[in-house]
Amino acid sequence: MKVLITTSSFGDEGIQTLQKSGIEVVNNPYGRKITQTEAIALLKGVDGVIAGLEYYGYTLLSETKLKVISRCGSGLSNIDLHAARELGISVYNTPNGPTQSVAELTIGCLLALIRDVPRINNLMHANKWEKFTGHLLKDMKVLLIGYGRIGKRVASILDTIGAKIFIYDPFISDSVIPDNIKKIDLIDGLGMADVISLHSSGEDLILGQKEFNLMKRGVYILNVARGGLIDEDALENSLISGQISGAWLDTFQQEPYKGVLIDYNQVILTPHIGSYTFEGRKKMELDSINNLLNGLSILG
Amino acid sequence: MKVLITTSSFGDEGIQTLQKSGIEVVNNPYGRKITQTEAIALLKGVDGVIAGLEYYGYTLLSETKLKVISRCGSGLSNIDLHAARELGISVYNTPNGPTQSVAELTIGCLLALIRDVPRINNLMHANKWEKFTGHLLKDMKVLLIGYGRIGKRVASILDTIGAKIFIYDPFISDSVIPDNIKKIDLIDGLGMADVISLHSSGEDLILGQKEFNLMKRGVYILNVARGGLIDEDALENSLISGQISGAWLDTFQQEPYKGVLIDYNQVILTPHIGSYTFEGRKKMELDSINNLLNGLSILG
Repeated sequence: MKVLITTSSFGDEGIQTLQKSGIEVVNNPYGRKITQTEAIALLKGVDGVIAGLEYYGYTLLSETKLKVISRCGSGLSNIDLHAARELGISVYNTPNGPTQSVAELTIGCLLALIRDVPRINNLMHANKWEKFTGHLLKDMKVLLIGYGRIGKRVASILDTIGAKIFIYDPFISDSVIPDNIKKIDLIDGLGMADVISLHSSGEDLILGQKEFNLMKRGVYILNVARGGLIDEDALENSLISGQISGAWLDTFQQEPYKGVLIDYNQVILTPHIGSYTFEGRKKMELDSINNLLNGLSILG
Repeated sequence: MKVLITTSSFGDEGIQTLQKSGIEVVNNPYGRKITQTEAIALLKGVDGVIAGLEYYGYTLLSETKLKVISRCGSGLSNIDLHAARELGISVYNTPNGPTQSVAELTIGCLLALIRDVPRINNLMHANKWEKFTGHLLKDMKVLLIGYGRIGKRVASILDTIGAKIFIYDPFISDSVIPDNIKKIDLIDGLGMADVISLHSSGEDLILGQKEFNLMKRGVYILNVARGGLIDEDALENSLISGQISGAWLDTFQQEPYKGVLIDYNQVILTPHIGSYTFEGRKKMELDSINNLLNGLSILG
């Protein structure tokens, strides 16, 4: 059996697991995303691929003898799933890879935000000892918009900390929601939440000026989901008016972000690094290896 | 009944609770810590006191008809407990007041530290989009030095996040430790921990150069307990050598802190604000009111 790994970096542990299973491993020799021509050449005689973000369409796939495409990552938009099904190719992804990394960063940035840690830390590093009183997360009302893998993980940590959890997610039925969590309409949720955190998977605007106007004064806003879910101009207006006490944004309408929110020290900004942990990356790689071995009917 | 409140600020809710119980409330009129002479005058005819950090020795106490001293805070070092006992005065404190505030700041600063949030946030605010890969707290080995109220609260949140928890506390018997936590010797703990967090109540040095030398390379150090527990010079040496990846300090050998650690951007510094939350302060006030009413045999 022969397997191609197209991601530009891949840990030794995963490669050794494949080799121990008697598999010949071919690596991406270019150290970057491969082209279609390179893909055709590299896929010759290959049974399975650990795939990055290169495109797998019908033309490419029909020239291979691939049995399995195992994405190292959660997105599958670079794979023509219909073509893969028609050609009998199994497709896998690693949806759990970023969950813990994103959830931990969410909790860390929320706790840092309500205690004003980045600003206080900068004062200390400028030799200024100034005490500020912050807020407790315990007993705060937190509205999670989206209750998928990441929303669930965030909720379980919030619950141990003692926050009151509310979710808005039209795609979740009441029966899967634990007793400590309350399902709520968006309008009602916006009016009572102390913290609003986005964890939905869609692309459409959720928080525009109209929604900001419905929020309780002093709310904190978190977005680690998609930049397009928040109207950044409306967010700025609400910061200026004091409607919003602070925000943490990891995703933006345009990335790399070069907008006006850099002028607000009550906003924590991070460059789309929700999933960026060494351990999360490694788990994603091992999950992709296990999926591949499973797809090739080999025990890992 | 007459009650004096000596703390320089105290919320209306607590004062109203006292007044509803038919108690006459006298406030500290100075807006600062009162002197002994002022205390003697203010305590005339007073049955109970909600006490700040002014000193209550035998001389002062013997000139009053006090029945109850209810500290709004956890420390009791400003009260001569022997004299109070001899004079039949009940003494209370509010040990749970700061627990949640300190625990939340600990978790927030730890998660921010291992993802390098303050530094990345500063880069973003300087218009620099640079991604860095951080670490997951899940599966990290965390050594808690001290397993009192705060250590226990931190441990329960760490457990939900998925960290592996070890404690060093010579005053805790094995029987009170839950199954998910392992008791360990200090030497063994220093050698295997990825994170070391101080939550002990003593004043003596725990982490000197010898102890830093025993630590695993790349460890993170947290101190929200007492400044004297860490040798700050040894900490700096270990930052320079790379033995330590980063640290968060909320307490210092000398406060306000004006030392060299302000030059290290892998160190998060906060000005002894572990207990500084509005909600924690309010809880402490209400606890002190309940203790006072209890001591005066009045139902709150």
